[in-house]
Amino acid sequence: MQLPPPSPTIILMNKDFLSTDSYKGVRDFYPEDMAIQRYMFDVWGQTAESFGYERYDASILEPATLYKAKGAENVEMVNEQTYTFTDRGNREVTLRPEMTPSVARMIAKRSRELAFPVRWYSIPSLYRYERAQRGRLREHWQLNCDLFGSDDYTADVELIALGYQIFMNFGADESMFEILINDRQEMTALYESLGVTNEETQTKITRLNDHFDKITEEDYRKQLAGILGSTEKVVPILKAITNPSESDNKVKNGLAALGITNVRLDRTLARGFDYYTGTIFEFKDTDEANNRSLLGGGRYDNLAGLFGEEKIAGIGFGFGDVTMRHFLETHDLMTAGITAPDVMVIPTESEYNLHAHTLAQDLRKAGASVGVDISTKKVGKKLDAATKNYVTHVVVVGEDEVKTKTYELKNLATNEKTTGSAAELAAVLE
Amino acid sequence: MQLPPPSPTIILMNKDFLSTDSYKGVRDFYPEDMAIQRYMFDVWGQTAESFGYERYDASILEPATLYKAKGAENVEMVNEQTYTFTDRGNREVTLRPEMTPSVARMIAKRSRELAFPVRWYSIPSLYRYERAQRGRLREHWQLNCDLFGSDDYTADVELIALGYQIFMNFGADESMFEILINDRQEMTALYESLGVTNEETQTKITRLNDHFDKITEEDYRKQLAGILGSTEKVVPILKAITNPSESDNKVKNGLAALGITNVRLDRTLARGFDYYTGTIFEFKDTDEANNRSLLGGGRYDNLAGLFGEEKIAGIGFGFGDVTMRHFLETHDLMTAGITAPDVMVIPTESEYNLHAHTLAQDLRKAGASVGVDISTKKVGKKLDAATKNYVTHVVVVGEDEVKTKTYELKNLATNEKTTGSAAELAAVLE
Repeated sequence: MQLPPPSPTIILMNKDFLSTDSYKGVRDFYPEDMAIQRYMFDVWGQTAESFGYERYDASILEPATLYKAKGAENVEMVNEQTYTFTDRGNREVTLRPEMTPSVARMIAKRSRELAFPVRWYSIPSLYRYERAQRGRLREHWQLNCDLFGSDDYTADVELIALGYQIFMNFGADESMFEILINDRQEMTALYESLGVTNEETQTKITRLNDHFDKITEEDYRKQLAGILGSTEKVVPILKAITNPSESDNKVKNGLAALGITNVRLDRTLARGFDYYTGTIFEFKDTDEANNRSLLGGGRYDNLAGLFGEEKIAGIGFGFGDVTMRHFLETHDLMTAGITAPDVMVIPTESEYNLHAHTLAQDLRKAGASVGVDISTKKVGKKLDAATKNYVTHVVVVGEDEVKTKTYELKNLATNEKTTGSAAELAAVLE
Repeated sequence: MQLPPPSPTIILMNKDFLSTDSYKGVRDFYPEDMAIQRYMFDVWGQTAESFGYERYDASILEPATLYKAKGAENVEMVNEQTYTFTDRGNREVTLRPEMTPSVARMIAKRSRELAFPVRWYSIPSLYRYERAQRGRLREHWQLNCDLFGSDDYTADVELIALGYQIFMNFGADESMFEILINDRQEMTALYESLGVTNEETQTKITRLNDHFDKITEEDYRKQLAGILGSTEKVVPILKAITNPSESDNKVKNGLAALGITNVRLDRTLARGFDYYTGTIFEFKDTDEANNRSLLGGGRYDNLAGLFGEEKIAGIGFGFGDVTMRHFLETHDLMTAGITAPDVMVIPTESEYNLHAHTLAQDLRKAGASVGVDISTKKVGKKLDAATKNYVTHVVVVGEDEVKTKTYELKNLATNEKTTGSAAELAAVLE
């Protein structure tokens, strides 16, 4: 039933009506947007599974202690940037802001039963309390892929190859994105080789490097000299950072062996360097107008330590739904969004609705998705609606069809028509 | 890497270790459980789509007012049985306990653009604050199917047929469940025909009927007489309720036209009767030990009214994941749970790991899911692990294979072996 616009008088007079807006910073997914989400999640899942990754999930509700454990800095982050509240059993609960603590908890719990290396992936929704004016989302989804229990460098190669394959499976090519790699151990070796042996100084330089793209070379030199206390090593460090010897990185060479060549060593890449212990990587959009980080991850050493378990090495990455969608739209790769059924059965009068349902049921046996237009519109309007919604086939059911049980299936794209019984039409749809 | 059990001494001495337990009343989904969830959700989604239903979703975060709007009783329910908290912008937020208010909000928002009737489905996670001792879950998933904007009785037929088809698509037969139907308007007519015209008395009887199965007939008679203020109409009402005239219900007859016959009129069925305005239905397990409600729903009249929109008729149902799984297990219909890749490539030494990855990449082109066992186990142990995890094919990669680029693909189920290049093995897997 097509509804007439409601009387504005009624709306204005009643102040008690509820708003139809969603909560601030979250999204409603109407069918056309949901189709895009599902398309992205399907390609993510299929690609991860093609590499032997198994899907897991946990609840969005986690004990707040899971996020506060890493120290005072974390307690502040949890209190200010997450949804944390106390339940009526006096338990502090947090809506998970990231997946790694949950998966670490699950791996630690079964560390003695799991056959390592374990390959897991998940597509969780994550929650952050963002200030509304920033315009950032408070709920988003993220693909998380992790390989636990192997410190072999080919695990790093595999994770990056999996990320790469996701882009290929969306129809991207190597010109659309670039893979940046760094390695914390190589960075430490590099600092040592240049005579910077103090760990704290190393960390400070790493943090400065993380902002390399955002400041001028002059500023970089100045700040570096400030950290070092002299200008002596500024030039050799700058040179080592801007001209890395590409051949030294095993992971990059491994990717080349798999035919993946849009890879560049970037000695400034840090990505929360305090967290990662080996390889660090980031996929970047090459589009000038959208030169942003797409997917990022790295290697960490001691995932289960907080739970009192032995060290379990891991490497993983995360990839957000908003970033993914933006990339596909920027590069004209978005193909999803049509959600109409294959066939719409259109009764001419409501007295034929039930007959239309029996025909629909028969056609579904062919594997087709079949709707019945039981609106009170005229047949012409029903056909218009089917065309507008990208339905591919229609069958009109009126007096004759009900009597003879012979129907005409029309392909709206080709105008091809098939006349026959329900079974005969079903055969065409198979 | 297979990890040795950690030293118990270390665990006992450090009191600061985090628990690996999830939050109370929620579940972790390890891959074997996740595979079951996904199997159920896939069949749900495929069935709904075969009827032309489009998937939507909203955020789990909703303004608390959305649930409190229906009156004082609701405010109490929201405060005591939901997760509701105040955010730092002083907004009251609720983790959605059900989907209907969210979908009503979304439909109302676009009521002037949507082409009714609208068929939508969703598989949301829902949150309720249950007292822990009840052993009930605080987070669960639910299939929600709704048809909006038609008051034609075949819409009711369609919704029930969709529910029925879900069971069929899981391999169930009609003996395993029964469909109970009632109708609020028919009940009102029945009360009137028996001379019970007071609306409040009607409601009281309906509420008593809702407990019909849980009390003795003697108790029922007594309480009914109490409501009526006399015993005069007790026998005619009891008779009308226990012996309904089956032929009168159009929806039941419509289902029969679709070949659906495990349907029974049940005049005691209420299911939150205050909410529904026409057809009410419930699917029940016929298993003696598990004679519980599986899927339930009904027709409601004024979905968008709270938002100031014109009346939009709707009919819908909900079906929980826990109930679904229990039904499949009870009737031995659960077929999901294996998550291993199709092929495991097994390097004999870690120096062949990278070569194994290149072979895996070639085999994936055939559409197979392929893992690489980069653990440090001996080959025999790796083969044992593949067998144990239900991997279907293995390829061992050692010195000879790397040299000759000729491999042997072994089917673990049939012991069939294929020798050839990567491309030749891929052809076997296609």
